[in-house]
Amino acid sequence: MSVTASAPAKVILLGEHFVVYGEPAIACAIDLRARVKVSESSDAIYVKSLNFNLEQVFHEGVENVEGTAYRKLKPVYIAARETLKKLNVDTGLKVYVDSEIPVASGLGSSAAVAAATVKAVSTLIGEDLGLEEVRKIAIESERYVHRNPSGIDPTISTYGGMIIYSKKTGVRKLNVREKLSLIIGDTGIQRSTGEQIKLVEGIARDYPEIFNYISKAARKLVLKASSDLERGDLTSFGRLMNVNHGLLSAVGVSCLKLEELIYTARKAGALGAKLTGGGGGGCMVAIATPERKVAVAEGLRSLGVNVYTTEVTYEGVRVE
Amino acid sequence: MSVTASAPAKVILLGEHFVVYGEPAIACAIDLRARVKVSESSDAIYVKSLNFNLEQVFHEGVENVEGTAYRKLKPVYIAARETLKKLNVDTGLKVYVDSEIPVASGLGSSAAVAAATVKAVSTLIGEDLGLEEVRKIAIESERYVHRNPSGIDPTISTYGGMIIYSKKTGVRKLNVREKLSLIIGDTGIQRSTGEQIKLVEGIARDYPEIFNYISKAARKLVLKASSDLERGDLTSFGRLMNVNHGLLSAVGVSCLKLEELIYTARKAGALGAKLTGGGGGGCMVAIATPERKVAVAEGLRSLGVNVYTTEVTYEGVRVE
Repeated sequence: MSVTASAPAKVILLGEHFVVYGEPAIACAIDLRARVKVSESSDAIYVKSLNFNLEQVFHEGVENVEGTAYRKLKPVYIAARETLKKLNVDTGLKVYVDSEIPVASGLGSSAAVAAATVKAVSTLIGEDLGLEEVRKIAIESERYVHRNPSGIDPTISTYGGMIIYSKKTGVRKLNVREKLSLIIGDTGIQRSTGEQIKLVEGIARDYPEIFNYISKAARKLVLKASSDLERGDLTSFGRLMNVNHGLLSAVGVSCLKLEELIYTARKAGALGAKLTGGGGGGCMVAIATPERKVAVAEGLRSLGVNVYTTEVTYEGVRVE
Repeated sequence: MSVTASAPAKVILLGEHFVVYGEPAIACAIDLRARVKVSESSDAIYVKSLNFNLEQVFHEGVENVEGTAYRKLKPVYIAARETLKKLNVDTGLKVYVDSEIPVASGLGSSAAVAAATVKAVSTLIGEDLGLEEVRKIAIESERYVHRNPSGIDPTISTYGGMIIYSKKTGVRKLNVREKLSLIIGDTGIQRSTGEQIKLVEGIARDYPEIFNYISKAARKLVLKASSDLERGDLTSFGRLMNVNHGLLSAVGVSCLKLEELIYTARKAGALGAKLTGGGGGGCMVAIATPERKVAVAEGLRSLGVNVYTTEVTYEGVRVE
């Protein structure tokens, strides 16, 4: 018997990096999904990723094995193992990962895989873990990938929809009436979120007073933008995306390719455009009215990069 | 009889735009000069610019004449007229402007021309106006060019050297022991500083709380950088230039061409690189160690733009 579960990618619209320091961020689930198929096996946990074209057998208690397969697939193993532990079940598993989400691009690929893995494993075992439990185990898995995970990726992949989120106040769903078209451009430059977080840590450590004011600007910006969004003022929301991008540039996480995509999207008529996620490469996101959506996507495609035109999805982790 | 005076260009190293809102900025005079030659004439004030290839006769009391020559040369006329008024002299003048400073590029071309004009006219009349008087009249002339002049350009062109400056605390000379090499790249895109100031006004008006924190970050940054500079820590000064560029991007005054030059300079080994002046085009400035100076300049030249490798000059306005 096998079970397949899926979870959506996320895109951070505002507040990434500063969320690590307790400020709020706005993120939403988008219509790109990671699918994970699991079945029982006699012994150990076997993980195969169709995206990486890698496979690895994980044995309980055998840690720090050398090699790319072990390192890249370990978060999936952790998600599966922690789910079994939570359910007090001791069994082997086969886990197959197949994801539409580009990796290391700030779209929360690893969290979506983790959330889908937890859901698939728990369903296979016959236990219905609540969404909050799924999220917590996905966060455990994320700890291995990122040095200082904000928890936002597992939250979005689990719940779907659009949220405002902070360490202090937790998660609040945003009530958005306007249909929001998102255009995501992938620079094709892979960067580890952990490394980007380190860059910001350097600024925060060496220039604490300056960083404090930039963080406060980011907080005010996200709060203003969330009320703009709920009021349907997408023009102001877009302007604030542009301001937010500058703050991210200030803390050192933009790069020339991101700027090229971002200015191209703005020139093509986007309401706002900024890097999304860890930065230093990865993806940018633009919002646009339905009339300008195609022009923005075409502008980005003319730069020879992968472009995803997508919408917010309200479907979180689910069994397929 | 004729008199020629000259004044240096300025480059703002940190704090532009925020200086309009009362925060400090750091600027210095550089080895590019505007030269102004004046001689007495029977009637009216005749102004000719070799750079613009324009000439215009100005008559007292005849305002708002149509045409490019009138508009572009009026600041020179104002500088000459106000100098005559200050000295209680009623005479005609011929004023020839010849400047090495690229115009509308954030290097304070108009202020340097104004300061040189005041110095040349007062010397021709035989009165030795003090530097503070020269600066004040140059500011009068600048009022015509910019909507909300910070006064920094006339100050630098008059006094030379390197300063920290704010509306609240006035001007303080910085004691810099390290020799500072500057590499200036001109995007070739001309933008009016007044228009760029309007863009920032829009952010300040629509998002006052956010703008307030960004301004405070800019203030802390400039104060930290000035102590870094006086301590000889050019590495930290360069990092803070990069942070400052992000804040300027946040308030909407960067552009793709500027980003291209800035990231190219950083990649070539600059300690820091940012837009300088009004932005939206104009110039960027990088600092580098003597060993990396040539590599940074070559990197920028490979983009096909005009590049000036220069040093801080301690010679302000002077008679030639």
